[in-house]
Amino acid sequence: MTKHKIIYDTDPGIDDAIALVFQARHPQIELVGITSVFGNADIDTTTANALYLASRFAPGVPVVRGAAAPLRHPPPAPIPHIHGKDGLGEISRTGHVSQQEDGRAAHRFIVEMVRANPGEITLLAVGPLTNLALALREDPDIARLVREVVVMGGAFGVGGELGNATPAAEANMHGDPDAADIVFGAAWKVSIVGLDVTHETVMTTAFLAALRDSAGDAGRFVWDVSRFYERFHADDGMSRGIYAHDYSAAAFVVARELYTTRSGPVRVLTDGIAAGLTVQKPASMRAPAPDWDTRPPCDACIGVDAAAVLDLFTRTLRG
Amino acid sequence: MTKHKIIYDTDPGIDDAIALVFQARHPQIELVGITSVFGNADIDTTTANALYLASRFAPGVPVVRGAAAPLRHPPPAPIPHIHGKDGLGEISRTGHVSQQEDGRAAHRFIVEMVRANPGEITLLAVGPLTNLALALREDPDIARLVREVVVMGGAFGVGGELGNATPAAEANMHGDPDAADIVFGAAWKVSIVGLDVTHETVMTTAFLAALRDSAGDAGRFVWDVSRFYERFHADDGMSRGIYAHDYSAAAFVVARELYTTRSGPVRVLTDGIAAGLTVQKPASMRAPAPDWDTRPPCDACIGVDAAAVLDLFTRTLRG
Repeated sequence: MTKHKIIYDTDPGIDDAIALVFQARHPQIELVGITSVFGNADIDTTTANALYLASRFAPGVPVVRGAAAPLRHPPPAPIPHIHGKDGLGEISRTGHVSQQEDGRAAHRFIVEMVRANPGEITLLAVGPLTNLALALREDPDIARLVREVVVMGGAFGVGGELGNATPAAEANMHGDPDAADIVFGAAWKVSIVGLDVTHETVMTTAFLAALRDSAGDAGRFVWDVSRFYERFHADDGMSRGIYAHDYSAAAFVVARELYTTRSGPVRVLTDGIAAGLTVQKPASMRAPAPDWDTRPPCDACIGVDAAAVLDLFTRTLRG
Repeated sequence: MTKHKIIYDTDPGIDDAIALVFQARHPQIELVGITSVFGNADIDTTTANALYLASRFAPGVPVVRGAAAPLRHPPPAPIPHIHGKDGLGEISRTGHVSQQEDGRAAHRFIVEMVRANPGEITLLAVGPLTNLALALREDPDIARLVREVVVMGGAFGVGGELGNATPAAEANMHGDPDAADIVFGAAWKVSIVGLDVTHETVMTTAFLAALRDSAGDAGRFVWDVSRFYERFHADDGMSRGIYAHDYSAAAFVVARELYTTRSGPVRVLTDGIAAGLTVQKPASMRAPAPDWDTRPPCDACIGVDAAAVLDLFTRTLRG
């Protein structure tokens, strides 16, 4: 079977790291590049973390530095209480960093890889969408040459929430709402994996402990890196576990049958108190809505078989 | 038991009329005034309809003309395809209109009634919230003198939608988003009955036919007035029935135990492509959100025992 050639656009970030381990171990995924972006930490930190993660779990995969700031808004406030001061849960790092940065800018790398592999590249984007927007700006034609775009981000209220960074905005959308509105408006196939499903997909302490004890180095890493993140979740009112935000988007690429999606154009509010809010016009809505009707449909996840998604993670890490 | 003294702020409107019949027949409700507002039709039409409805079902209850336009936005486009050219489903009207308009403005009537009945008045508002905002502007102290405010409006996504007038806005919120943001920010007890529950509360054709055949003049009226509305719903993709939008808010006043609510401050977006969108910060969300945190909590309905709400309607109309 044909592998999914993925460029992983990421701001590691603990759940980003967990999703990377999954991709590195999944037999149907071929990681062809890792592009960094600001978000869970500043760009120096996320790029350094991407180099560490590639060196340890995906040696040889190019790591390319991306945007340091959103297109128009100021950078978001740091969130060391969620991902740690180092963006990776302040773990003791083992092994050495063999990888060095690719010399290109991330958006240029994306353009060149898509041009070189027409119809084959999946952009799996789990941070602010700045790199993808910059790539579209540089070469709008890549939209028709990308296989698909899968985004972790947004929230449509179905799961009870419209946001986590603010009451109206999920963190990646809030990080660069202008970029997100550009990406969701381009003429490529976009699927959106947001809080409606990621908040249903909880890796409990017991789940993570079982991985630690049964999935070798990868399992131990997932346990170690999630300790800090789990303390944040506990402080935020969750009992003993973590949300599998970014992993959910990776799982969607290889197992979309585990998700229920809703089709319709999506706008992202770019200004005001709800900047970063994602609003879909469901295909079932008949009233005209000019601000949506001129744009292509996206698939937004509104339901998930969380048990199966979690089982997929365990099976993949155990190999 | 103490009756609910209700001022019914309304833009009749077919579902407004259905909710009025319910209030007129419910033994625990004392209608103390009907204030009109633009919305489902222009203010002349909604006021004339309020006079007709009061004459037929609530004789002697004062009918007071309210706002003709929103605080700041232009009036919404007419929607004769939903409520008919006359705003009441183009039925043949029976009986004569015995009622005349009270001479006051609606917002002044609200202030005077609240002042005269401290702690006793429920404001049941099922149209754009302009009259309530004007009343607050004229006399902010009424907030602490009102028993409660129950609003039909908004949508929080839990039911799959954020709006019906636009992908982001329910019609009453869209009608005057500035007024709604003022009303939800005032220091009174506010409950919001939005699409999350009204779209779950469907009066089917069979339900309406049973009313027609078993609930006397009121039942026949509900059947007659809903014929036009049902055709709109069918055109909008629903199979044979109508949403009980405004009735749901009336039912909430007397049977709130049939609803699940979520507490937290609510903002209404006043500008841009999502004007009229309601965004709640749930009490469970711990991240600071200055645009919400300074405001009082509202109760937003996120679940309903629809069968019981519908049964309440039948029992009340049968008397």
